[in-house]
Amino acid sequence: MNLDLAPDPLLAVPGPSQIPPRVMRALMRVVDHRSPHFHRLYRDVVEGLRYVFRTNGDVYPLTASGTGAVEAMVLNFVRPRDTVLVPVFGSFSRRLVNHLRRVGAEVIEVNYGWDKAPTYEDLKAKVEGMGIKKIDVFATVYNDTSPGLAFRDLPKVVDWVKSYGALVLVDNVSALGGDYFEVDSWGIDVAVSSSQKCLASPPVMSFITVATSEAYRKAESISHPSIYFDINLIRKFGEKFETPFTPSVNYLFAIREALSIIREVGLENWIRWHIERGRAIINALRRAGFETFIENDYYRSSTVLSFKYPQGVDSARFRSIVYRLGVSISDAMDDIKGKAFRIGNMGYLTRRDALSLVSAIIAAAAELMAIKDVDVNSFREILNYWEPEQFSVDEG
Amino acid sequence: MNLDLAPDPLLAVPGPSQIPPRVMRALMRVVDHRSPHFHRLYRDVVEGLRYVFRTNGDVYPLTASGTGAVEAMVLNFVRPRDTVLVPVFGSFSRRLVNHLRRVGAEVIEVNYGWDKAPTYEDLKAKVEGMGIKKIDVFATVYNDTSPGLAFRDLPKVVDWVKSYGALVLVDNVSALGGDYFEVDSWGIDVAVSSSQKCLASPPVMSFITVATSEAYRKAESISHPSIYFDINLIRKFGEKFETPFTPSVNYLFAIREALSIIREVGLENWIRWHIERGRAIINALRRAGFETFIENDYYRSSTVLSFKYPQGVDSARFRSIVYRLGVSISDAMDDIKGKAFRIGNMGYLTRRDALSLVSAIIAAAAELMAIKDVDVNSFREILNYWEPEQFSVDEG
Repeated sequence: MNLDLAPDPLLAVPGPSQIPPRVMRALMRVVDHRSPHFHRLYRDVVEGLRYVFRTNGDVYPLTASGTGAVEAMVLNFVRPRDTVLVPVFGSFSRRLVNHLRRVGAEVIEVNYGWDKAPTYEDLKAKVEGMGIKKIDVFATVYNDTSPGLAFRDLPKVVDWVKSYGALVLVDNVSALGGDYFEVDSWGIDVAVSSSQKCLASPPVMSFITVATSEAYRKAESISHPSIYFDINLIRKFGEKFETPFTPSVNYLFAIREALSIIREVGLENWIRWHIERGRAIINALRRAGFETFIENDYYRSSTVLSFKYPQGVDSARFRSIVYRLGVSISDAMDDIKGKAFRIGNMGYLTRRDALSLVSAIIAAAAELMAIKDVDVNSFREILNYWEPEQFSVDEG
Repeated sequence: MNLDLAPDPLLAVPGPSQIPPRVMRALMRVVDHRSPHFHRLYRDVVEGLRYVFRTNGDVYPLTASGTGAVEAMVLNFVRPRDTVLVPVFGSFSRRLVNHLRRVGAEVIEVNYGWDKAPTYEDLKAKVEGMGIKKIDVFATVYNDTSPGLAFRDLPKVVDWVKSYGALVLVDNVSALGGDYFEVDSWGIDVAVSSSQKCLASPPVMSFITVATSEAYRKAESISHPSIYFDINLIRKFGEKFETPFTPSVNYLFAIREALSIIREVGLENWIRWHIERGRAIINALRRAGFETFIENDYYRSSTVLSFKYPQGVDSARFRSIVYRLGVSISDAMDDIKGKAFRIGNMGYLTRRDALSLVSAIIAAAAELMAIKDVDVNSFREILNYWEPEQFSVDEG
């Protein structure tokens, strides 16, 4: 098979996601990162990022994947020996714990398995039950893509951990722009996100927002071995609309374009589109006999949809048939590998894409004799979900 | 001024450099980084990188700028308390020292000022004069772009430091593909380079080659706080043609294209092109009355050409006139800021680009009354330098 001739599959994985043509074309520009052209570009990007993070604080682009941004957050805002509370409900929250331990933090893990996200009541009860008196940092993933769980009670939890004087660090790599998230009004100190998920831009960069002066004060007092992720240095250059090291300039042109599309559509609409499209994909696949891996609506992520494989079906074979039909979906990870497949419901997934996705999954199940009939209402779910008027085509 | 309407200046800075249209267009593809399409892409890229690094060892792409790759090198191959010998001859070698100290190494700095690179005889004499008996690591920059110096004696120095059993780490961020560099035959253990310099691809990624089993053995025994730059993890994923974290997939398509252009031209020719073009630019500007900042031919870099500003001329004003003419050049950095300007002679700089560059510099000097006449032979230098036949246009 010559993979250079085989068409690129539709990206329905939890990142990278499909890129609007306008954004793809915007990639084709590079300027000197110490020039007036760049200063203007940087300013535009930061302004757009503030809009999606819902913050008046500072936002910095990092040339690194989301994991790099999480590392930057941990290195700069956690002191060795800090007591750090972390709810664990998937691979990425576990990786966060791993990161925190590497810098020498005392981590208090509260585990939720891989089928439910923490709730405010439960987390509070557990922590109080453990007799914990001191929390220096509360660090959490907001949307753990590995099982497809969202931490809906985060705003309430932030209010509560603030009573300990804790600094709040949030990894929202996989849901920014695809679900409600408010840095300033929720009281988050530092948050990170990534380019290739719901912001409809290519995989290259990640973003860190530092929203409070408490966070900066702490960062100034911490020394760590990284120059590349040194927030004090990044801030110093950010003040003159530059990055300390050569950034991916072409990518910054692309994210500027993506952010301007999100502004044209409106962030509320962009988020609502994710939510309604996700619900439609779930309904369509349920009608075809699939079961969601996360049963409870409250815990379920809007941006990563996980489903049990059809009974008796080889999981790799199933995904490979879907791939042959031109659609890339993912297996689950780590503890639940082979138990669920995952769909990235992220960014610029058009109605036709959603249709390809749902029908490829149905076709694979048919090929493996895992379903007998197809309920035509599966397709009506895809025909009828809400999308922003900018993307809607009327019957005309 | 609307900088979105103002044309993008020619990139004659020490990175980013001009991108061939074929490479720019190759950016416009993204696939799932856990898919068969990606495995093939990864393999092609690594094979092309081995060719330019002149190594049979492993090469890994990192989603980070060159500074990130240097950080990866330092974190993974230097133990706290290691005695590390470092020659310092510019900003980037000084940054290397800074990096090494952050991980707790005992650094022996040998300083060469900002106008000459180390030589074998001198470095050896100094180290022996200091009575040094133990060198665990020899770490150096090969081409320090800040003054425009190349460390020509590196192969001899490698032979000598190997007699101490030292591991050899080399930052060749700014000259790979633009000057001779041989990882295997020179005996280098670990080297890093970057995308946006002489490899004619966009600023996004950097590359690390681990060429010896000694290097791997050492890395396995070291623990450090970074997951993002953990070479053991990167290696594990590299074995299955993947990266541990989402890489810049679109960029990997671009570097594959750039590497295939370099193969079509031939690495020897690609390097020779840099050297001959650099010599022609120097000759052209000398004829116009400019003086090179590095007087000695032996020390001078082929990829970063530095010149003294014309006497009595305001350095910022001078560069801003060049910029207005559509050409981006750089000031020198740190210790010699304002004393020299720097030209990136890197990658896909065509004959027309070289002409624009030289004439914009001459025009700025004329505007500031810093030269009286222009020697027409300046232009003949640009007309007549050697370039690969693939890029040559005959009088025909």
